[in-house]
Amino acid sequence: MVVAVLGCGYWGPNLIRNFLQNPEVEAVIACDPDETRLEAVRQRFRWVRTTSSPSTVLNDPAINAIAIATPVALHYELASCALKRGKHVLVEKPLTRRAMEASELLALAESAGRILMVDHTFLFTDAVQKLKELLVYGELGEPLYFDSVRANLGLFQPDVNVVWDLASHDAAILLYLIEAAPVAVSAVGARHYYELENLAYVTVHYETPFLAHFHVNWLSPVKLRTICIGGSRRMVIYDDMETSEKVRVYDRGVEITSKEGEEKLRVQYRAGQMYAPPLPNQEALSRVVQHFITCIRTGQRPISDGFFGRAVVALLEAAQLSLANGGQSVALPSEYVTCPAAPLLEW
Amino acid sequence: MVVAVLGCGYWGPNLIRNFLQNPEVEAVIACDPDETRLEAVRQRFRWVRTTSSPSTVLNDPAINAIAIATPVALHYELASCALKRGKHVLVEKPLTRRAMEASELLALAESAGRILMVDHTFLFTDAVQKLKELLVYGELGEPLYFDSVRANLGLFQPDVNVVWDLASHDAAILLYLIEAAPVAVSAVGARHYYELENLAYVTVHYETPFLAHFHVNWLSPVKLRTICIGGSRRMVIYDDMETSEKVRVYDRGVEITSKEGEEKLRVQYRAGQMYAPPLPNQEALSRVVQHFITCIRTGQRPISDGFFGRAVVALLEAAQLSLANGGQSVALPSEYVTCPAAPLLEW
Amino acid sequence: MVVAVLGCGYWGPNLIRNFLQNPEVEAVIACDPDETRLEAVRQRFRWVRTTSSPSTVLNDPAINAIAIATPVALHYELASCALKRGKHVLVEKPLTRRAMEASELLALAESAGRILMVDHTFLFTDAVQKLKELLVYGELGEPLYFDSVRANLGLFQPDVNVVWDLASHDAAILLYLIEAAPVAVSAVGARHYYELENLAYVTVHYETPFLAHFHVNWLSPVKLRTICIGGSRRMVIYDDMETSEKVRVYDRGVEITSKEGEEKLRVQYRAGQMYAPPLPNQEALSRVVQHFITCIRTGQRPISDGFFGRAVVALLEAAQLSLANGGQSVALPSEYVTCPAAPLLEW
Amino acid sequence: MVVAVLGCGYWGPNLIRNFLQNPEVEAVIACDPDETRLEAVRQRFRWVRTTSSPSTVLNDPAINAIAIATPVALHYELASCALKRGKHVLVEKPLTRRAMEASELLALAESAGRILMVDHTFLFTDAVQKLKELLVYGELGEPLYFDSVRANLGLFQPDVNVVWDLASHDAAILLYLIEAAPVAVSAVGARHYYELENLAYVTVHYETPFLAHFHVNWLSPVKLRTICIGGSRRMVIYDDMETSEKVRVYDRGVEITSKEGEEKLRVQYRAGQMYAPPLPNQEALSRVVQHFITCIRTGQRPISDGFFGRAVVALLEAAQLSLANGGQSVALPSEYVTCPAAPLLEW
Repeated sequence: MVVAVLGCGYWGPNLIRNFLQNPEVEAVIACDPDETRLEAVRQRFRWVRTTSSPSTVLNDPAINAIAIATPVALHYELASCALKRGKHVLVEKPLTRRAMEASELLALAESAGRILMVDHTFLFTDAVQKLKELLVYGELGEPLYFDSVRANLGLFQPDVNVVWDLASHDAAILLYLIEAAPVAVSAVGARHYYELENLAYVTVHYETPFLAHFHVNWLSPVKLRTICIGGSRRMVIYDDMETSEKVRVYDRGVEITSKEGEEKLRVQYRAGQMYAPPLPNQEALSRVVQHFITCIRTGQRPISDGFFGRAVVALLEAAQLSLANGGQSVALPSEYVTCPAAPLLEW
Repeated sequence: MVVAVLGCGYWGPNLIRNFLQNPEVEAVIACDPDETRLEAVRQRFRWVRTTSSPSTVLNDPAINAIAIATPVALHYELASCALKRGKHVLVEKPLTRRAMEASELLALAESAGRILMVDHTFLFTDAVQKLKELLVYGELGEPLYFDSVRANLGLFQPDVNVVWDLASHDAAILLYLIEAAPVAVSAVGARHYYELENLAYVTVHYETPFLAHFHVNWLSPVKLRTICIGGSRRMVIYDDMETSEKVRVYDRGVEITSKEGEEKLRVQYRAGQMYAPPLPNQEALSRVVQHFITCIRTGQRPISDGFFGRAVVALLEAAQLSLANGGQSVALPSEYVTCPAAPLLEW
Repeated sequence: MVVAVLGCGYWGPNLIRNFLQNPEVEAVIACDPDETRLEAVRQRFRWVRTTSSPSTVLNDPAINAIAIATPVALHYELASCALKRGKHVLVEKPLTRRAMEASELLALAESAGRILMVDHTFLFTDAVQKLKELLVYGELGEPLYFDSVRANLGLFQPDVNVVWDLASHDAAILLYLIEAAPVAVSAVGARHYYELENLAYVTVHYETPFLAHFHVNWLSPVKLRTICIGGSRRMVIYDDMETSEKVRVYDRGVEITSKEGEEKLRVQYRAGQMYAPPLPNQEALSRVVQHFITCIRTGQRPISDGFFGRAVVALLEAAQLSLANGGQSVALPSEYVTCPAAPLLEW
Repeated sequence: MVVAVLGCGYWGPNLIRNFLQNPEVEAVIACDPDETRLEAVRQRFRWVRTTSSPSTVLNDPAINAIAIATPVALHYELASCALKRGKHVLVEKPLTRRAMEASELLALAESAGRILMVDHTFLFTDAVQKLKELLVYGELGEPLYFDSVRANLGLFQPDVNVVWDLASHDAAILLYLIEAAPVAVSAVGARHYYELENLAYVTVHYETPFLAHFHVNWLSPVKLRTICIGGSRRMVIYDDMETSEKVRVYDRGVEITSKEGEEKLRVQYRAGQMYAPPLPNQEALSRVVQHFITCIRTGQRPISDGFFGRAVVALLEAAQLSLANGGQSVALPSEYVTCPAAPLLEW
């Protein structure tokens, strides 16, 4: 297979490296309008051809697959061109800026019979796969809440606010882990420095009492990366700042034991064992690349396909709208957020 | 001075102990309808007289001051009786269940020329006093946000939800530290077990971009007690679960250095020293008791007087209303939340 | 049963409180030459009789048992008097200053048929009982090493060095957990302020490769309380500064897989699950008191009997001698350190 | 300047990368007998020439400097050849296996007027430079003790024990930070798996009460990297496992205030502020390379020159001898451990 990577800024070289290391990839072409970046790519990767012309790449029939790591504003156009020319496409997150654009891309992919996959790298980490496993196998019981904190100092982005930058990770993880479709989003934020929010609180509502909440923050004195999922049987904390034992499962919970008609509330607290499962410690991006290639070879649907990518975009769009309306709850169109249940990754 | 403590459940004995240890207190009377509790008090405190009759206490002219540690439903009636009989009153937090009741109590206290103080114990801790000092002396610069997490497993309350139980602390700390008056409150929550919320997210809005947010949770696998305040000059984290270095001040921040008309965003991040100031480590409740007694002796206004206590109740009432209305923002009446600026405690 | 507590300084009142709470105890007498301390005891405990005369206590035939919480210099004399008068004796750790004195006491106890027990409180904690359980049931496999760090700022003692103050805990825990008898001790230390060591490293040698090491330190900027035990199957860390999850068990280890004659070293590292077992959270001293009383009633041998107490003293004496001789290894007399295997506490 | 790197195993490629990035280096030649490694180097670094023949490198007059990253058994021979041929030499730590070999190398370097430097990378970290600064500027006062813990699971080495592997870092840091010369070393260890120690405790003695101690361990369930230095004015903890705030300075200490002849010990404990200075976060190895090149250009003496490297080897040799003799203290020849005071690095 021959793969072209469009965009050689921050993330592109990581994609190049992982495609080069994959045994199913015969050649990698790197494309960027900036010659300095291309020179850096040539310095670092001996066997990569480079070009500054995306149309050369898009029109080259020898190229089977395209990975798009450009600014998000270019995703839609580049991806639709590539799909129209019969190429399989891997797009950096978020898939597009609008859910409607995502709808067009996934229709294109369906009609062309090509793979459209979004690089939501976090889904492919050891930790998120373990969380999925805990949920799929019922170890947590019924999920009750999802609480995420993603805070650090910077990096302020010139074109997107903290929700599009950081909450895109949480939205993807939430949608991957929880099968039910969310029904509405509300968000409040603060703009301390310029016209974009650098701090936001996003709440995702469901038809059940299940509640999800993201705290995303570019103005935190310390770096925090924590997800807590409360379940009826167990609870789990995923702390990505830990160097080992990133995932901890707590056999803790509550049972209300009052009987009907009793006035007094009787509660039993269960404070059992905590354990940290071992995690295999493989680079997530190598799994992204392998999954993309496997889906191309087998026709299998990616766990982060166009439907999934659109659901993330729809959730972020709704959060953006709520921010603009003082935190008013914004309904999520069910056709956008109901995606086929994404399975555990096989490896 | 002779002091009576009404209510000898969980908190009452702590008040008794601290009044007994105070050199300005000559005698302490304990009152509770439950004879078992009175016996426990007598076992533990040799010099305390006990009675099961609140009216005896309220009508005893030898008693100068009353501390009310009963269920919150009784606060209003007991406090108004005591004030009408010319006694100084210390009430457990929250002052009342309704802001209007608080208004009546503070009017009574004003007209009777008696001290009405609310036992918001957290204000009297080393840590919160240090935070106040950092703000008063400008070390943090302009405050930008207040983020609090107060989570643990239990204790589910039969009569109040997690907002009234836990967020009452955060509301008091916020109102004490930040001089500006909040303008609105929104809150979302989840009821996983019974008709009261066991998990909630409360946002407090201001006229400025300053934003406050509380995450309160009875269903957390771990105990968390963290407040982060971001300021334009420095940021501070108060982690009450630390055994030492509870308060950490970070010389970290952001400066946008783009010039007018420039397209590209230029941001400078400042990542300077962190320091943890030494804290004197005195019991907060002994300071509460001393402050109450000093205010009685000198006529000084308590830092948590009736106005302050009413503001806390108003904020919690608004949060409750927002919870009931799906997170709609609820305006705070400015007459309820504008209180005289509370100073640093002197000691 | 009627119990007298000799010595009402720091620890005595804790003993009084726990004896008072024990249902098998009918009366508690407190004894101290210092009248101020006796007054404090009377203030705090309503039902305790007090006396300043130890001989009154020792000669009172109504008193069945004596708990000795005086300075260590008085342990030997008071305990031997009490045993001679037919009383059961609980002595604060360390039992005596010399192993020979301990030998006399245990001979007295044997001949009088009375219980002699040492209050090595740490043995009765949830955590140490859990460690014992892990070892007894083979979960750790063969024990390979014991590493302890016990460090904080102060308290400098006027009469004993840091080894007698802090390492007495580690010596007791080690001797309780590890069945094999140690053969020698070496110790180095530093005296930065006065003639007693404020920092020391103690090594305990065995006939096998098993090695134990204690770092004890009165001059540490932070408080540390950590014991790590490496076993052939699993390893465990007990961190007493954690508020929850004090004991963590790691399914980690090493296997050398080189075959005979192979030149290259082949090693496999096992990095499996970590788990933290729930601990019941009962006060250790109430278990000490209950165990003492149960042993009196049933004639059962205490887990920290005179033999055990003597072994601790012998180990500390040897460490002291090694300190005085520049770290030279000092042999432990096997008759002093071979004690009957102490079982898990039953409760 | 033209530099050759001998040995392209684990560390060699890091040296190659840093030499390539240094503006004073014109060309880098990589040398290793293993062709697979050379191919990997060519893949990764486009502009590096490779050879499998060390004699070609050593005899090439165009090569000014040699970096030796081979197994330690080859250090002596390769370094002496290179020095004899007039090349500057950077050797991986430890310099040699015997202090006598180190003596010969430094004599060769002196007589040839060439730079001999040992790559004790840790000395060039932000953290160790900060510790040196704190000591040089007197912020810690008089140093009282140095306590290091370096523990993790593996990597068991086939040819050296845990002392040569891990304590070589601590020995270098200690000798760099503390100006006084140590006088003796004692060490105890355990061999749980094969004929080399996998766990050891090393004590370094001085003429003053200052004491240094290293706990090095390949059989620890968790990774620990902690150095604590107690000083008469302040104390500092360097925890290399922290992602930020690796160095924390504590204004804590002790003062004995008893007067002459007083019987009672009076001690005052000072528990002041803790602070974590910001650290520049530059790669240590790039500083190593720059320091080596600067020393070549200016003739300045490296902070880790041959004398320094010999002192480290002498300390490790003494520890090895003590291990073999059951922990007996081994004197350090003063001519081996007295080196010119190493200054702070300038950058």
